[in-house]
Amino acid sequence: MAEISTGQDVATFINVFHTEPRNQRRLVDRIIEAHKEVIRHRAGYVSTNLHASKDGYLVIDYTQWRRREDFEAMFRDPAVEPHFRPIGELTRGEQMAYDVVYCHDADG
Amino acid sequence: MAEISTGQDVATFINVFHTEPRNQRRLVDRIIEAHKEVIRHRAGYVSTNLHASKDGYLVIDYTQWRRREDFEAMFRDPAVEPHFRPIGELTRGEQMAYDVVYCHDADG
Repeated sequence: MAEISTGQDVATFINVFHTEPRNQRRLVDRIIEAHKEVIRHRAGYVSTNLHASKDGYLVIDYTQWRRREDFEAMFRDPAVEPHFRPIGELTRGEQMAYDVVYCHDADG
Repeated sequence: MAEISTGQDVATFINVFHTEPRNQRRLVDRIIEAHKEVIRHRAGYVSTNLHASKDGYLVIDYTQWRRREDFEAMFRDPAVEPHFRPIGELTRGEQMAYDVVYCHDADG
């Protein structure tokens, strides 16, 4: 279960994938496959939470890593590319590093 | 501190705002202001986590509500609109309801 907070010592990456309702489930399955095959086994990986928009046009992957460098090292590794190729065949994600700037919950 | 899981009984909404580096901080401040003035006081509100992309072009608001209807009722309330207007002057968000389809963390 992911924990989000401004004080947490993790690097946050959010990947926004634009897709279409007929491809959304396939895209989700390919991301989960890449996650199980390679992402979760990388050094520095902390958590992944994958979201499918109810209208079918978006998939958002919310991931946390120990350090930004751990995440970037994954993409520089040639062994990883074949696992991401099936995702790239369906869509290009808008992948970005984020600062968590504000958190609030009803119990806080 | 927000908790994300596929089994959780909450409605998840993610709002993706496109902006520019010179406006990003102002946009963040206006969203926080609307949150403090109105959003967090609404029935059914659970949590908000606000993210600013390190490149300056995106702001992502990740919110959880008890029920989808609670979130939608907020936008139908005429008293709320003046609080959201300053945000709309800077950008239009791509607001959407999501299903959490997959969760994994390194300890799990």
